[in-house]
Amino acid sequence: MIKTDITVVHNFNSGPSVLPKEVFEQASNAIIDFNNSGLSILEIGHRTSLFQEVLDEAIASAKELMRLDDEHEVLFLHGGASTQFFQVPMNLLNENETAAYLDCGTWGTKAIKEAKIFGNVDVIASSKDKNYTYIPKNYTIPSTAKYFHYTTNNTIEGTQMHAIPETNVPLVADMSSDILSTTIDFNKFSLIYAGAQKNIGAAGVNLVIIKKDILGKVTRKLPSMMDYRIHIENGSMLNTPPVFAVYVCMLTLRWLKQRGGISAIEKINDVKANLLYNTLDSLPVFRPKVAKEDRSKMNVVFVIDSEVLEKEFLAECKANGMVGIKGHRTVGGFRASLYNALPLESVQSLTDLMKDFASRKG
Amino acid sequence: MIKTDITVVHNFNSGPSVLPKEVFEQASNAIIDFNNSGLSILEIGHRTSLFQEVLDEAIASAKELMRLDDEHEVLFLHGGASTQFFQVPMNLLNENETAAYLDCGTWGTKAIKEAKIFGNVDVIASSKDKNYTYIPKNYTIPSTAKYFHYTTNNTIEGTQMHAIPETNVPLVADMSSDILSTTIDFNKFSLIYAGAQKNIGAAGVNLVIIKKDILGKVTRKLPSMMDYRIHIENGSMLNTPPVFAVYVCMLTLRWLKQRGGISAIEKINDVKANLLYNTLDSLPVFRPKVAKEDRSKMNVVFVIDSEVLEKEFLAECKANGMVGIKGHRTVGGFRASLYNALPLESVQSLTDLMKDFASRKG
Repeated sequence: MIKTDITVVHNFNSGPSVLPKEVFEQASNAIIDFNNSGLSILEIGHRTSLFQEVLDEAIASAKELMRLDDEHEVLFLHGGASTQFFQVPMNLLNENETAAYLDCGTWGTKAIKEAKIFGNVDVIASSKDKNYTYIPKNYTIPSTAKYFHYTTNNTIEGTQMHAIPETNVPLVADMSSDILSTTIDFNKFSLIYAGAQKNIGAAGVNLVIIKKDILGKVTRKLPSMMDYRIHIENGSMLNTPPVFAVYVCMLTLRWLKQRGGISAIEKINDVKANLLYNTLDSLPVFRPKVAKEDRSKMNVVFVIDSEVLEKEFLAECKANGMVGIKGHRTVGGFRASLYNALPLESVQSLTDLMKDFASRKG
Repeated sequence: MIKTDITVVHNFNSGPSVLPKEVFEQASNAIIDFNNSGLSILEIGHRTSLFQEVLDEAIASAKELMRLDDEHEVLFLHGGASTQFFQVPMNLLNENETAAYLDCGTWGTKAIKEAKIFGNVDVIASSKDKNYTYIPKNYTIPSTAKYFHYTTNNTIEGTQMHAIPETNVPLVADMSSDILSTTIDFNKFSLIYAGAQKNIGAAGVNLVIIKKDILGKVTRKLPSMMDYRIHIENGSMLNTPPVFAVYVCMLTLRWLKQRGGISAIEKINDVKANLLYNTLDSLPVFRPKVAKEDRSKMNVVFVIDSEVLEKEFLAECKANGMVGIKGHRTVGGFRASLYNALPLESVQSLTDLMKDFASRKG
C-alpha cells in the first residue's frame, strides 16, 4: 500500500496552512514583477498607490465577505493572535473592571493569562475537566462584564462553537482558525481577531474587526502601536505594514469571493468535514476525541488506541504525500486541518487511506 | 533627454526598498516549491525542520555578519521599529527611572513619545532647531540614565551618526536604516533594533539584538508577546513567526555573506555615496540639505531651489525608470536611498541624469 511516487502533496497543516494554488502562483509572480510595475512586491513603497490599492481591496473584500455594517472597522495589524491576547484587554479593560472569558482550550487559556495583566478576569466556564474535549454550555455571562471573550474554534483540541452566545455583553472572539469558513452574523461582535495564516493568508498579520463604540473607554495610556483608534485613523498604515502578508491576504480574499463567498465555501467545508467524520465513525480503529456536537469542521482530531498502529498510519500518510497530520505536540494523536483552501480531493485521499488501513489492520 | 524605453528600474525607495535580484528569484521560487518539499514556503508549518533551518540560518548569519559575542541574543520579532519604540522602554524602564534620548529626527521623536508612557525621558540634545539637518555634538549622557537611546541613521532627514558615543550608560539604538551597511562594534550596544525592510529583508519583521544582562530589571508585568526574555527562551518562536519575512531576511543575509560581509559592502556603499554627494556638490542647481559631516550614506537628501525645476527633474527621473526619489512627504525635495542592494549602476544613472539636467537647466 505504501506509495513512493508522490505527485500531489496533501497539506493538512494547522497553520501556516494550505492556500489556493492560484494565490501561490500570483504571489510568486508578484515577487518578480508586481502588476507590471517592473518592481517586486517586496520593494514597493507602502505609501504608493501600488500598495494602497492592495490594502483597500483587502479591506473591502473582508467587509463584503463578512457583510460588515458601517459601525465595524477592518484592520490589518502586525503580529498574530498572541499579540491580540494582550492588545484586546489593554484597549478594553480598566484595572478595576472585569471581563468574562470562556476557557475552552490552549489559546483561550493563553488569552486569559494575558488579560489578567490588565484587569480582572472572570472565567465563567471551562472544559479543562475533560481536557478541553467539549464546549461548556449553560453558563451565565454576568451583565456587568466589560466584554465576553471566547475562541470560536479550538485548533489544537478540535472543538468549535456552533452558535453565538445570546448576551447584551459586548462579544470579543478569537476566530483565528475558523473565520470565513462558516456563515455567521459577524456584526454581533464588538471585536473579532484572527491570525491570517489559516483561512485568510500568510503568517505575520492579523485581521482585526472592531465595532467603534467599544473603544476609548480605558484610562491607561496606550502605546501608539497598540491603540486601535490610532490604527483606524491611519487606515492600518500607522507604520510600514507587513506588505507581502497583506498582499497574500488580498489574493486569498479575492479567491474566496470568486468561489462564491463564505456560504459557498461553507457547503464544501461541510462536505469535507462530514466525509472525514463519517469515515472516522465507521472505522473502529480510529477514535475521534471530542464531543460529537462540538466537533470542529476545521480541525479534526482523532487517535488510534495502539502506539504501533499510530506509527504505522503516520508513516503511510507520509508515504502518500500527506503532511501536517500529526496532532499538536501537547495532545498527540492525529489532526487533519480542513481549511477553506484544502481541496476535497485531499480529504478523499485521506479517507481512502483510512478505509484501506482499517481493512488491513482494523 | 526624456527616455520612455525603460528596461531597468532604479529603485531609490526608502523602505520597503530594493533587495538583491537573487533574493527575489529565490523567494519567488520558494512560493511555488520550497526546498523541493512540494510545499510553498507560505504553507509550511513553523514548527517543522523546514522552517527551523531557515530561522537558525538567519540568526547565525546575523551573528556572524555583526560579529556578535555570546552575551548578545538575536531575535526576529513581529512588527516594525515602531513596535520597538514602546517595547524597549516597557522592558527596560521603570516608572520612576529616567532614560536619556537623543532627538535627531522624526523617528527619534516618535521613540521619545512612546518612552514617556513608561518612565521619565531626558532629551539630552536635539537638532530640532535646524529641522534636524545635523547631529548634535558635545552633549553629556547622565551616568544615572537607565539607558541612552539614539537613531543611528535618520531616514527622512538624511543624517547619520558616524561614531558610537563614549559612555558607560547602556546603549540602545534604532538602526533600521543603516544596519549591516557599515562596520561598527555592535557588541558595544545593549540593545539594537531594526525594521527589516531596508538592509535586512522584507517588511513585517524586526531584527532585535539584546545583551542579556539588561533584561529582568523592570517591575511591571509584561505581556508575554512583549517580553524579550520569553522570546529568547522560545528562540523567536513564542508564536507563529512571520515565516516568509524571516525567510527573505535569511536569503538577504546569505547574499550579504556571499558578497563578503559588511566590510565588503561598506566599500561599495562608500563609492555609491561619494559619487552622489560629489555630484551634488559640483552642481549648483542641486543643494544637499544636511551638514556635511553628518551626511547619511544611506539616504541622500537634497533640494532644487525652484519649484518648476524640481517638478521637471522629478519627471525626468520617472521617465528614466527611477522610482522612490521624491523626498518624504514631511520634508519635500528629493531623497535617494542607497541601501546595500542598490546597484552602483543605479547611482551612476542618477548622477548622469543630474549632470545632464544641470547642463541643460543649471
